[in-house]
Amino acid sequence: MGTATGKEYLDRINALNNEIWIDGEQIQGKVSEHPAFKGVLESKAKLYDQVKQDPDMLMDSTKQNNFSYEIPRTKEQLVKRRQAIRSWASQSVGTLGRSPDYVSSAIMAMAGYSEYFGEYKENIEKIYEEAREKDYTFTHTFINPQVSRKFYWPDGDDETIIAAKVVKETEEGLVIRGARLLATQGGLTDQLLVLPAGSFTDSAYLFGFCIASNTPGLSFICRPSYASGVTSFDQPLAARFDEGDAMVVFNDVLVPWNRVFLYDDSDISSGLKTGTGMEQFLLFQAANRQVAKTEWILGIAQLMAESLNVTEYQHIQEKISEIAMAHEIMKGFVLSSEEQAELNEGGVLVPDGTQLKMAFHYYQKVYPRLTEILTLLGASGLICIPTEKDFDSQIEESLTLTLQGERISARDKVKLFRLAWDLTMSSFGSRQTLYERMFFGDPVRTPVSIYSTYKKEAAKNLVSTFLNINQQEED
Amino acid sequence: MGTATGKEYLDRINALNNEIWIDGEQIQGKVSEHPAFKGVLESKAKLYDQVKQDPDMLMDSTKQNNFSYEIPRTKEQLVKRRQAIRSWASQSVGTLGRSPDYVSSAIMAMAGYSEYFGEYKENIEKIYEEAREKDYTFTHTFINPQVSRKFYWPDGDDETIIAAKVVKETEEGLVIRGARLLATQGGLTDQLLVLPAGSFTDSAYLFGFCIASNTPGLSFICRPSYASGVTSFDQPLAARFDEGDAMVVFNDVLVPWNRVFLYDDSDISSGLKTGTGMEQFLLFQAANRQVAKTEWILGIAQLMAESLNVTEYQHIQEKISEIAMAHEIMKGFVLSSEEQAELNEGGVLVPDGTQLKMAFHYYQKVYPRLTEILTLLGASGLICIPTEKDFDSQIEESLTLTLQGERISARDKVKLFRLAWDLTMSSFGSRQTLYERMFFGDPVRTPVSIYSTYKKEAAKNLVSTFLNINQQEED
Amino acid sequence: MGTATGKEYLDRINALNNEIWIDGEQIQGKVSEHPAFKGVLESKAKLYDQVKQDPDMLMDSTKQNNFSYEIPRTKEQLVKRRQAIRSWASQSVGTLGRSPDYVSSAIMAMAGYSEYFGEYKENIEKIYEEAREKDYTFTHTFINPQVSRKFYWPDGDDETIIAAKVVKETEEGLVIRGARLLATQGGLTDQLLVLPAGSFTDSAYLFGFCIASNTPGLSFICRPSYASGVTSFDQPLAARFDEGDAMVVFNDVLVPWNRVFLYDDSDISSGLKTGTGMEQFLLFQAANRQVAKTEWILGIAQLMAESLNVTEYQHIQEKISEIAMAHEIMKGFVLSSEEQAELNEGGVLVPDGTQLKMAFHYYQKVYPRLTEILTLLGASGLICIPTEKDFDSQIEESLTLTLQGERISARDKVKLFRLAWDLTMSSFGSRQTLYERMFFGDPVRTPVSIYSTYKKEAAKNLVSTFLNINQQEED
Amino acid sequence: MGTATGKEYLDRINALNNEIWIDGEQIQGKVSEHPAFKGVLESKAKLYDQVKQDPDMLMDSTKQNNFSYEIPRTKEQLVKRRQAIRSWASQSVGTLGRSPDYVSSAIMAMAGYSEYFGEYKENIEKIYEEAREKDYTFTHTFINPQVSRKFYWPDGDDETIIAAKVVKETEEGLVIRGARLLATQGGLTDQLLVLPAGSFTDSAYLFGFCIASNTPGLSFICRPSYASGVTSFDQPLAARFDEGDAMVVFNDVLVPWNRVFLYDDSDISSGLKTGTGMEQFLLFQAANRQVAKTEWILGIAQLMAESLNVTEYQHIQEKISEIAMAHEIMKGFVLSSEEQAELNEGGVLVPDGTQLKMAFHYYQKVYPRLTEILTLLGASGLICIPTEKDFDSQIEESLTLTLQGERISARDKVKLFRLAWDLTMSSFGSRQTLYERMFFGDPVRTPVSIYSTYKKEAAKNLVSTFLNINQQEED
Repeated sequence: MGTATGKEYLDRINALNNEIWIDGEQIQGKVSEHPAFKGVLESKAKLYDQVKQDPDMLMDSTKQNNFSYEIPRTKEQLVKRRQAIRSWASQSVGTLGRSPDYVSSAIMAMAGYSEYFGEYKENIEKIYEEAREKDYTFTHTFINPQVSRKFYWPDGDDETIIAAKVVKETEEGLVIRGARLLATQGGLTDQLLVLPAGSFTDSAYLFGFCIASNTPGLSFICRPSYASGVTSFDQPLAARFDEGDAMVVFNDVLVPWNRVFLYDDSDISSGLKTGTGMEQFLLFQAANRQVAKTEWILGIAQLMAESLNVTEYQHIQEKISEIAMAHEIMKGFVLSSEEQAELNEGGVLVPDGTQLKMAFHYYQKVYPRLTEILTLLGASGLICIPTEKDFDSQIEESLTLTLQGERISARDKVKLFRLAWDLTMSSFGSRQTLYERMFFGDPVRTPVSIYSTYKKEAAKNLVSTFLNINQQEED
Repeated sequence: MGTATGKEYLDRINALNNEIWIDGEQIQGKVSEHPAFKGVLESKAKLYDQVKQDPDMLMDSTKQNNFSYEIPRTKEQLVKRRQAIRSWASQSVGTLGRSPDYVSSAIMAMAGYSEYFGEYKENIEKIYEEAREKDYTFTHTFINPQVSRKFYWPDGDDETIIAAKVVKETEEGLVIRGARLLATQGGLTDQLLVLPAGSFTDSAYLFGFCIASNTPGLSFICRPSYASGVTSFDQPLAARFDEGDAMVVFNDVLVPWNRVFLYDDSDISSGLKTGTGMEQFLLFQAANRQVAKTEWILGIAQLMAESLNVTEYQHIQEKISEIAMAHEIMKGFVLSSEEQAELNEGGVLVPDGTQLKMAFHYYQKVYPRLTEILTLLGASGLICIPTEKDFDSQIEESLTLTLQGERISARDKVKLFRLAWDLTMSSFGSRQTLYERMFFGDPVRTPVSIYSTYKKEAAKNLVSTFLNINQQEED
Repeated sequence: MGTATGKEYLDRINALNNEIWIDGEQIQGKVSEHPAFKGVLESKAKLYDQVKQDPDMLMDSTKQNNFSYEIPRTKEQLVKRRQAIRSWASQSVGTLGRSPDYVSSAIMAMAGYSEYFGEYKENIEKIYEEAREKDYTFTHTFINPQVSRKFYWPDGDDETIIAAKVVKETEEGLVIRGARLLATQGGLTDQLLVLPAGSFTDSAYLFGFCIASNTPGLSFICRPSYASGVTSFDQPLAARFDEGDAMVVFNDVLVPWNRVFLYDDSDISSGLKTGTGMEQFLLFQAANRQVAKTEWILGIAQLMAESLNVTEYQHIQEKISEIAMAHEIMKGFVLSSEEQAELNEGGVLVPDGTQLKMAFHYYQKVYPRLTEILTLLGASGLICIPTEKDFDSQIEESLTLTLQGERISARDKVKLFRLAWDLTMSSFGSRQTLYERMFFGDPVRTPVSIYSTYKKEAAKNLVSTFLNINQQEED
Repeated sequence: MGTATGKEYLDRINALNNEIWIDGEQIQGKVSEHPAFKGVLESKAKLYDQVKQDPDMLMDSTKQNNFSYEIPRTKEQLVKRRQAIRSWASQSVGTLGRSPDYVSSAIMAMAGYSEYFGEYKENIEKIYEEAREKDYTFTHTFINPQVSRKFYWPDGDDETIIAAKVVKETEEGLVIRGARLLATQGGLTDQLLVLPAGSFTDSAYLFGFCIASNTPGLSFICRPSYASGVTSFDQPLAARFDEGDAMVVFNDVLVPWNRVFLYDDSDISSGLKTGTGMEQFLLFQAANRQVAKTEWILGIAQLMAESLNVTEYQHIQEKISEIAMAHEIMKGFVLSSEEQAELNEGGVLVPDGTQLKMAFHYYQKVYPRLTEILTLLGASGLICIPTEKDFDSQIEESLTLTLQGERISARDKVKLFRLAWDLTMSSFGSRQTLYERMFFGDPVRTPVSIYSTYKKEAAKNLVSTFLNINQQEED
């Protein structure tokens, strides 16, 4: 089959008729025409169309599938993957957390080392092949509700099940009841990938599977939209890229056995993320998306400074240099992850995970500073920005005269400042900042993970040898 | 006359029928019923009503006017002023930059040392008395448009006047043409105070006056509203306290001579802010408003941590302690400004300006961190928060079960998180952060002002004496 | 008796003949003539002489004792105490952590509420009276060695006792064996105050007492001196104020019962610090010392900037303003601690402890930045600074020509830069920075203490009332 | 000839008998036996010996010269250069700013593109060949004294010449009088490289040359030594690696024409640093030295944490992860500079300068944090550390018992803490921190340089295209 066109993707999503709730109402009719999701679905459709038009966005080995399904086995394939990810990410200003190549990277990685899954080996392979051939998009979910502990532990009775768990095993499959948090683009994708949620170790919570978004009993409860009723002049990003976040509710959902790839095996569950390379490939996509986003921030910053005629100031140059350095540091992490890539037992060339963990942790910290720089550059100019309607009214003349910039018309300057505002200060922009800040885990705990995998022996030996000191054996 | 009731205030503002533009349309009918301004005007009305009910909010000397019109001459009056400002500010979560006591503090200070204004002495006294007796509210404007230099200098021809300037003097008064930026609550107040904009020194730009908001030729172009179409459940702050920001356009506005208090005198203009105590009293109001706001942030943070049952973590306690310390540091600046208050030549007891400059500069830097702390506490819980309509729909049961917190119902927890989100992440909240960050001047330049007035001689002498070193005389 | 002269103090210390070890040798003869301690002891002697000459440095009530022994019962006495502390601290550039008024504040506080100590009430009173009348200086110790846990717990056999503990009770008193860490000025004071070390709760470790520094079996093991062989031109601070730090070793020291004020009572031990006001008065001394030190830093910074002719730069003014703000923030904490002072059960007016904890915690964080600013101002000028001997040699002419500054001779500029270097970069200066950073506890844990005592209820109630939300009762 | 042995190097330096002043006295006799320089010269000798023993430290093309003289023309040669630099730097804990490969990189780069120097082409080639064959070491100087402007401008009379300038041209060469600041290792190297000091543009200051350190009239005035009288137990770094910093005084020094490579040509002078690749290769050496240093810091930190048994704490792991991330970020900059290396007009493969400027600027900011982390890990354990003499005295038993660590003896733990202290807190360590902070230019101005060379067009185009906005032509 190969890749889908944008239209095919939209038709497919509409046909699924997923159960999606937003602002107290269930979506009826075509989701691609709903004001909350019209923009983002069109943007995704454009991504599909881009692939159709650019052979560099295809798998090297098949020449007909989306690049993200390529299982990399050579350095060149990693480099090609990097370039394709950045190209796609730049199309959406780096704002789409669930760009189709994100979760498909996880599917790819699991299939690349399918032996890892033991008895479920063939299931994951089939899931992958179907996804690749049908050019599916996915969301995923791996976070349990974080309420007070007394309610959701396994010993709760059935009425008070909160976190999704297996309530029955049947010949057909597993029956799941309860909720999962935060599926970004929940309801807007073909499939839902469900991964074990780290903290729970009871067998009823140890599962991994992949099902269609319209599986009976499955519903998505979305947060309010930032795109509804918005024009792309006033909010150029929200109007196009508000992808939505959803709570996923499993109302006795039957998951067929052939869609299960992990169940009741704590060893497989705990090694899943890094053992298969899934984590590394997810982070590889994310780091490259963040590289693309940072380039956008640089461009916005530079144009703002030019429009205000302040590029000569030392403190302005310092701020823009900060963005440039963040850009290069992120690119450096990616480059190092490629340099240190290793073949895993599945023969997949996996980029170095420690470098990529450092990348996302660095970005958790630097991204809020990057957006802060945009607000500092725009300053009070971001407080009071006219809208498209203002420009289309009688007061247009006042605006044109008063808000003009250096070598830029008032209208164009307003567009630019609205973009900066939408990326940093609108409800859409603030959610972006929080997303990057929390991406892949609490920034308080990430260093623990970096510490645990970073190799420290050589450094210790330098010191011990120089000082001629000894550590005694542990008891 | 004394103080107005909330209703009297609303009736008065509606009767003015000011020329206000928003989203391309001019407001017709009662501004107090317009969706953009209904909330904030009701909140202001409540402030008026609060004064009616609380004798501590009245002037000490007259027992019948708003406290902010009191010209302080004793330490006790300063303390009372501080308390009343905090009480009012806390009513509106510290979010109203143009709480009526802000600009009235400037009017009061100028009248307190009316001799400063020479020939215009009586004008400023009359303006003050009228304001005090009629219990007026004000906005003010003191920033010129910041476009490329070539256009707005005095030598521009009449068609390209951008920054407001005197285009004619007549027997009746000054005729003003051009624009000024950023009048917060522009159009929603009785009066507009116009102060000289620092950077322009040509006589045509050196003026200070006070006119009714409905003076012919005066119009207010507002930024889009963050309150329109919003419920106080979903956005408890925006719905109530979005005060709006406006560009002010003077279309050949005639300012009568008796409303002018400064004209074509660069000495008076340059000494105006600190010479009269105006700056100090504006900052005294602001610092106390910020103290009140910080207490709110502390309360929100503590309740969020309790609802998530995370108060035992060291890093959570550290974050909440940071808020507490900011709170106390701000209170300390205010206390020191009172301790070091001095009588000026008008016999007004003026709080120390350097302390208050330090206060707002400190807040420019710490406020973004305080809001960051709220987002770090809420984390992904702030990404996906249901609305009132969600709770009023079929999915209420899922929400109630899944989103409950420690010792708090799902609905109450959602209210709390929506408050935190609205203060920090909604378009309303982001504008709050930018407002505090830019309040009273660019944070890059504020230290220059602090440096210039801070007394450093005693410290230098300690060192010179200890080392027995000499500075040679300057040439 | 009243106060001692500097000479009396030196004679007294010499006569004690304490057992002091430094760099592998035990000090023989007069400690006041030992190169390691000559400077600091002379500096302390000057403090004594200052009191003799300034009535403001005397107790208000007796007119004849050192101010630090005054038990404050009025606001005026607190203010007087503040002023005297700052005056003394400024004499030694704020570098003496064990200025005599530090530990005497603890003795004073314990005596002020002697009832707290139950059966030991009279002991503490006698200790205080003797100290006051003889004008004693103290060091204290409250930290156990921090080695691996397996060794120092109570079940260790006698040979491996590490942390000081009671090994025998006799009719005469307690016999103590083991070590305590970090008695600053250990060996240089009349007396040693021993407080329970927080972490150990076994009865053998629960004691508090006060003994002469020359008690048999007591020895002080000092770190290397930073003053030895140094001139006051080259290191103006180290030469005068290097107070030393010592490990205290108890070699079966007999502590007479009448010098004990706490033994084997975990309630009294755990409440000791805040219950008696001891912590508050220690911190009050420290905060005021830090205020004095900050004024010195400001003076040094300003003179450096002037000598380099860089005061006009925005980034220089910003840095000096940072110092000024730190100075005022510290003063604000002190002022607030006085404003919120409360009488304790002993009738002592105790400054607010939370404000003072905030003060030292703020200083832990800001002090390293203040010293960093000095190094940024001095820049490469601090890398290569000549010595007194250089100026006294043939190359003097080259130096005089090349190193001159703006309105300052090369010699004076070098003195100034050597002072800055000695405060920030010499081994002495680095120890100062570490001292402030670690003062009164690990900066990681201090916020926990602030959190626990800061009042948060009013802030929470604001929010709960506004939102109309309820917290359920705890189970 | 090839490479020298350590002994040959020492003999050579002793034979030069350079004029070196320290602490008011001129060094007489062998400099390699002077207490100030014995340590560092032995360390340098070891570097020479290391090259003798390791073929990887030799030039690839000649197989007999020091690696740093290789003119890289291939990627492999750059990689080899990187590895050799790191290997050497690690030998001296990254503390030697004038490791022989530093300035030799500049000589190499200039010779690699000798055409740049026009008429002086052959001079620079000869200088290079001699240096390579004799295996010279260099210091360099490029900073004028920074005193008040009135004295050092060209119009000063001869008596008041401060900054080094040409006072006469003769047939033999240029005669130079005046001073230059901050030649690290001044007097300890074979040769002195003199580069134009950026700020002065008068022809008398526009020169570049290379002379023997013992040229008549040349003297070096050194700062006080941190190595004198110190043992390698007590200060393992200062004792070995204190390289000294010197002011260079030219007392009518005759520079022969054949040692001049630049004179009175402002174009060549202003393009010198980046045009020849000199800056890039200096920074390439420095960045790799900093990588090596960071690895040492990591090793010290990890061993300290283990010795204190605190590796399980989250905040400790976070701090060590910070070091690890700085390490990887620096490595990433180097890797990117290699990836983007370009052949210059001389056919030299020059690593990308913008990446390397970012590297040193990043290190200016992060290095102080890295040393801060070491002090935070050591905490009060760094205030009171015994010396070798303490361990060799009667009190050894107390120390052994009390200061032992987790799986480490007291003596070894003390060695480790002394190393940490010497790197961060001794006068030697503080100078290291200041050195890194100021390396290659004031951190305030470095971003200006980064801004100016960073390519921003592609980023701007992304935004302009997306928004469809235009910048008008510049006038």
